[in-house]
Amino acid sequence: MAKLKEMGERRLVDIIKGMIGSDVLIGPGDDAAVIDLGDQCLVVSTDLVSFRRHMPEGMTLSDFGWMSVAVNLSDLASMGAEPIGFLSAMAMPEDMEVEDLQEVVAGMQECASANGAPIIGGDTKNGEGLVAGIALGVLKREEILSRKGAEVGDLVAVTGHLGEAAAGFYSIQKGLDLPSARMTLFRPRPRLREGRDLARSGAVSACMDLSDGLSASVAQVSEASGVGMQILWESLPAGPHVSRLIEEGVPEEELMLNFGGEYELLFTIRKELLGHVHALDVDFTIIGRVVDGHENVLIRDSSIFSLGDQGYEHFRR
Amino acid sequence: MAKLKEMGERRLVDIIKGMIGSDVLIGPGDDAAVIDLGDQCLVVSTDLVSFRRHMPEGMTLSDFGWMSVAVNLSDLASMGAEPIGFLSAMAMPEDMEVEDLQEVVAGMQECASANGAPIIGGDTKNGEGLVAGIALGVLKREEILSRKGAEVGDLVAVTGHLGEAAAGFYSIQKGLDLPSARMTLFRPRPRLREGRDLARSGAVSACMDLSDGLSASVAQVSEASGVGMQILWESLPAGPHVSRLIEEGVPEEELMLNFGGEYELLFTIRKELLGHVHALDVDFTIIGRVVDGHENVLIRDSSIFSLGDQGYEHFRR
Repeated sequence: MAKLKEMGERRLVDIIKGMIGSDVLIGPGDDAAVIDLGDQCLVVSTDLVSFRRHMPEGMTLSDFGWMSVAVNLSDLASMGAEPIGFLSAMAMPEDMEVEDLQEVVAGMQECASANGAPIIGGDTKNGEGLVAGIALGVLKREEILSRKGAEVGDLVAVTGHLGEAAAGFYSIQKGLDLPSARMTLFRPRPRLREGRDLARSGAVSACMDLSDGLSASVAQVSEASGVGMQILWESLPAGPHVSRLIEEGVPEEELMLNFGGEYELLFTIRKELLGHVHALDVDFTIIGRVVDGHENVLIRDSSIFSLGDQGYEHFRR
Repeated sequence: MAKLKEMGERRLVDIIKGMIGSDVLIGPGDDAAVIDLGDQCLVVSTDLVSFRRHMPEGMTLSDFGWMSVAVNLSDLASMGAEPIGFLSAMAMPEDMEVEDLQEVVAGMQECASANGAPIIGGDTKNGEGLVAGIALGVLKREEILSRKGAEVGDLVAVTGHLGEAAAGFYSIQKGLDLPSARMTLFRPRPRLREGRDLARSGAVSACMDLSDGLSASVAQVSEASGVGMQILWESLPAGPHVSRLIEEGVPEEELMLNFGGEYELLFTIRKELLGHVHALDVDFTIIGRVVDGHENVLIRDSSIFSLGDQGYEHFRR
């Protein structure tokens, strides 16, 4: 039998899902779970971050604390939920300074309070240095956004900019001083207000965050919805420091499609209701459309490229 | 500044609590957090278990999975909540066999389904081998049980038996074959029905589970309620295999007061409403009473001993 490292994380999720006969609205595999409470729905997300895997060079402990909250709130954002609370289960090294743990908690607290999600509990044990964050939110049943629901003819859109978190990451590697790009990487802002407004507009058919990059999210929304997407390269809204990193030799596909980490939302719009989305106070860009079939393609300079779920390695016909 | 290992887990919780200005009903430090949703309250518990710290000799991976769910459901039980779902954030070694992870998940699934708590989501990352479990429950605001609320004159009671999980642990160390004691240790049954019935009876003033042992729970309920307790040694309901382990030389205080792990409930009863509790289908034993002051004492053979929060080391005047 195989070892875990030989399986992708998504295969593992599939295996676990297969073992669980669940009657919940949206089970493991979507950004968060949903429980119908009658007059409203409860949304719960859990995401685990560790010092070893989620602390790139230059990140402070307080940034790490912020991140542990932000990744979970972003899952609520992508479903359109209103946060009501946050919990953290931490496993921290026993030779860690108490002051350092306080810095992690201070970063959590900053992100939680900036986003209206009070920290209401948690657990602290001895361990390798990781935080399992738990975000709780509520929304009306008819407002739930999920990865499923995109239909042929819908428009594909993203909030904000792409590639700015990647620009932050590579700026550190290249020794460039780009503080605002670094902040996008280390202190991402979950798009909670945008998610809620999109959910309430009634015009959005599917939604997901961009934590793993545009190509991964396009692949997952397409697969969950049973459709394909055509993405127009020239329409992608590059962040302000992306061109600087391209000059430094970082592949543009890596920056724009692959790296992720910007926690913007990818969503699909029912074309006839586009006006509803324009009426919102949401900064977004239309980047493509939903098509028949199961293939995702990128159109660039009038050529068509196959778009895989891991971006630029598959960025070729 | 101190390192984490120099602080107790409860000191750490206090430090973190102090950093969080929370307006929730019951914040970090009680068994679970509570959020008022209007017509009902949401209860959320998170507890982290690891291979390294929570897998005694003889425990299988499926027992470990069961345990990761049971410890969290027990926190719901102690507040009187009805479970509505469970999530698990797992950090598992990359050289673990997929089959072994499936065994962990199978154990989770068994405990979750035996207790009416569907597994609704989670996260799986690479790591040292730990599970942060998250249990969700609901109850009416007026039914919430907490560690606070015990009043002078109340009776102190426990569900079920004491010492049986400890008997399981020491039976393995002593090479004895006591399967039912081992099951109490490895597959504890969270007292969900009992907790709910006690909460609804209106007769219970405070409640907590016994995961860390009777003396620890007595200390915590007394401290939270601002009272003392007198516990009568002769009234403690010993599990069926406790005497066998006493014969083997395990100190009876270790078995009955200290070791914990049986996940029974400690609760206090308003004396004039005792009849309400007798009317329930709950197996319980009165073990003492709530008294004025802040000292907890154990009365044995008509002598009075001071009862500390770590049991028998403090089991002397």
